[in-house]
Amino acid sequence: MGDQERGAGLREAGAAAKGPPASQAVEAGHDLTRALARFIVGSDFDDLPAAVRHEGARTLLNWVGCAIGGSRHETVAKAMAALLPFFGPPQATLFGRPERVDVLHAALLNGISSHVLDFDDTHIETAIHPAAPVAPAILALAEHRPVSGRDLMAALIIGIETALRIGLAVTPAHYRLGWHITGTAGAFGSAAAAGKLLALSERQMCWALGLAAAQPVGLQEMFGSMTKSFHPGRAAQNGLTAALLAHKGYTASEHALEAKRGWLNVLSTAHDIAAITDPAWEILNNSYKPFACGLVVHPVIDGCIRLRDAHGLTADMIGRVEVAVHPRVMDVTAIKEPRTGLEGKFSVYHAAAVAVAEGAAGEQQFSDASVRAPAIAHLRRLVSVTIDPGLGKAQARVAIGLKNGERPSVFVEHAVGSVQNPMSDRMLEDKFRGLSDGMLPDGAIDRLIGLCWDADKLGDAGDISRNAASR
Amino acid sequence: MGDQERGAGLREAGAAAKGPPASQAVEAGHDLTRALARFIVGSDFDDLPAAVRHEGARTLLNWVGCAIGGSRHETVAKAMAALLPFFGPPQATLFGRPERVDVLHAALLNGISSHVLDFDDTHIETAIHPAAPVAPAILALAEHRPVSGRDLMAALIIGIETALRIGLAVTPAHYRLGWHITGTAGAFGSAAAAGKLLALSERQMCWALGLAAAQPVGLQEMFGSMTKSFHPGRAAQNGLTAALLAHKGYTASEHALEAKRGWLNVLSTAHDIAAITDPAWEILNNSYKPFACGLVVHPVIDGCIRLRDAHGLTADMIGRVEVAVHPRVMDVTAIKEPRTGLEGKFSVYHAAAVAVAEGAAGEQQFSDASVRAPAIAHLRRLVSVTIDPGLGKAQARVAIGLKNGERPSVFVEHAVGSVQNPMSDRMLEDKFRGLSDGMLPDGAIDRLIGLCWDADKLGDAGDISRNAASR
Repeated sequence: MGDQERGAGLREAGAAAKGPPASQAVEAGHDLTRALARFIVGSDFDDLPAAVRHEGARTLLNWVGCAIGGSRHETVAKAMAALLPFFGPPQATLFGRPERVDVLHAALLNGISSHVLDFDDTHIETAIHPAAPVAPAILALAEHRPVSGRDLMAALIIGIETALRIGLAVTPAHYRLGWHITGTAGAFGSAAAAGKLLALSERQMCWALGLAAAQPVGLQEMFGSMTKSFHPGRAAQNGLTAALLAHKGYTASEHALEAKRGWLNVLSTAHDIAAITDPAWEILNNSYKPFACGLVVHPVIDGCIRLRDAHGLTADMIGRVEVAVHPRVMDVTAIKEPRTGLEGKFSVYHAAAVAVAEGAAGEQQFSDASVRAPAIAHLRRLVSVTIDPGLGKAQARVAIGLKNGERPSVFVEHAVGSVQNPMSDRMLEDKFRGLSDGMLPDGAIDRLIGLCWDADKLGDAGDISRNAASR
Repeated sequence: MGDQERGAGLREAGAAAKGPPASQAVEAGHDLTRALARFIVGSDFDDLPAAVRHEGARTLLNWVGCAIGGSRHETVAKAMAALLPFFGPPQATLFGRPERVDVLHAALLNGISSHVLDFDDTHIETAIHPAAPVAPAILALAEHRPVSGRDLMAALIIGIETALRIGLAVTPAHYRLGWHITGTAGAFGSAAAAGKLLALSERQMCWALGLAAAQPVGLQEMFGSMTKSFHPGRAAQNGLTAALLAHKGYTASEHALEAKRGWLNVLSTAHDIAAITDPAWEILNNSYKPFACGLVVHPVIDGCIRLRDAHGLTADMIGRVEVAVHPRVMDVTAIKEPRTGLEGKFSVYHAAAVAVAEGAAGEQQFSDASVRAPAIAHLRRLVSVTIDPGLGKAQARVAIGLKNGERPSVFVEHAVGSVQNPMSDRMLEDKFRGLSDGMLPDGAIDRLIGLCWDADKLGDAGDISRNAASR
């Protein structure tokens, strides 16, 4: 099915749903899940615009790096310890680790590990982290049932589209209710992507979407606990399970989204199905974090690094760091004297200090050691913050008072990593190297970066996961 | 902890939440999850009133029979086929089947099989089927980590109490939204029960409840598809997973129920926490279906069987069967000429016919063969139905016009199987025999009935499951 045709098919349902007469609206609404299933089943790699394919590769590279980077986190270790007695055959890689586990547990554990650092990709409008619930499901499945790289990339991209479009349809009402949308909408993405690899029929895809609808994961109340990263992991596992069941003829409602007691009505107080039937490619609005902390403090970090690079600054030259920020920054990152790496992520003072001193803000800059380093602690105390309600959330002003009397300054309109000022491919590679450094065997990092960029050329997509094992 | 003390502890939170001043209410509300965790952790078998213990045994017996009875259903077969490649070690029995699978998959599959016939226990006020999400989790776990029968029964009863009390707190708003409450509230029951067997601390139990809260299962839109019975199975597996994770220190919010973005607020439009803090034993309101079809048609069946037994009726004596029913009966069971066993369950005509002819309405009476039998088809056509809005849902009037001119009649005020007119222990045994007939080896049925009644006396509770394997 070509772009034109798919777009038209989806628009048909959408247009009818919006316009009178009412009877037509009901009819079209009644077919929403089927229209989406048709889009998912009918899309293949050849249909995808070049920009979409490239964004898919960027999303894959960023996700693999995050999964490796998080793989030694205690959250993953505790989940492993709890579930170890129940693992099935060693079918799939745990990214960044030596163990192999069954496909379902691999989806769960790799999903946890890719989200645990809060460093994975973000679709700003919906607040969905789209790769974490989708990529681990299909990368694990691809080790068990060989598929081409083209099919894997088509599944990844269409799975992400599915999650994002459903997410958009309930934005902002669903998130405001308290759902962690990455896990709730994410399960549809995983079901769609895994279902594509299993070559589900249109009807089976409806069942898979139904089974995903019936098992949403994620409450915002869990933020701050290990359960936050469980959400995308479990969503990946649930969507995968949904697709596997549907593949064997396990039935579900074929109207899971639009029905009176279906997902859109039960899990949200409002929705607009045009977002689902709109043929725009939402993956083009995916974004990647250059810095290992909340997006809120990224403009400050970006400004500090820009001044450092432009003026060749070193720590001993600094007399004062003055930042002006959106009010939200001080709601979330006001810790003046962080005691742990985690607290460092919630300290705009620490973030500015490492950015000026080291020109970076990766996991290393938010380690316990970094937070406790005397030179960094000294710099933190030179940082002063002004709240400026006139600034946007993605904006900041930074001025650095040097001991020599100069005062270079910069206005950050769109922080690096935003959709307007995206990380370059090279920056994504550097981020990947930072996350996987020391975690993989010699040579594996460069090889894996190459496999991600050229994923669509692989004969066996399982090569990606196999090259991400720690030995 | 004695009844008195437990009751008091829970009442404390409840009373404060209801009464002024507001600051206290917030404080108590803030401790709801912890108060529930304290109740769960602190209860043991010795605390349970004799009637509660006995109801626990009845619930167990009924559940085991249903799990065996449903074990050869195609729904179970399809789930098995889909998940087989991912099974872990053979740790636990699949009830009524020869295979052994890992504990997590056993919880899922036995949960599906126990609900697939729609013949399991029902708590009428909440519409929760409480055993299906709870029993399979702990019966599987007990085969892997040996526990006493007393501990198993305490876990079963407290798990069911947990699910029912949370369910009551959101009844009727949560169900009206469209949630299948058996899967949503059920996961808490499974987490509580499994958590008791794992001897979780109070804090760990809060985490287990949090992990359960984050993964609700079940939309009513799935009714009529295989996904309906997936709901309690997945809830059993989710609650068990939650408890296993919490046991290894995997953290969650400790305010999962009461928080602003917690389960009560996100999944319901209204709630009353007094239901959770009320120390009443809700398991005493559990009920068991004598007939293998929807409760709505049970009063008619009961009336027909009463007349048959009282007057020694046989099919050849019958001229006419006149039933008067609540309007809801004809909304749901109006099929005059059913073509399959499943359609027979939605035919008040067929239900009355088999009840008069065979004095029973088990799975056998709702088989394809029964529906197609000429003698039954003839009787069906002699049934006439009158709608009487003055009758209650649990009521019916039945009159049978005999060829000899007599016309015995009966008014059913509370159908057998209701809380007011419960099935006797003997009737539960007969139901068990009907469900397991031909499914277990010789002698195993009587042995298993004995094991259920005396479960609390077992040194190793795993004996129950092991004796429920088909060979």
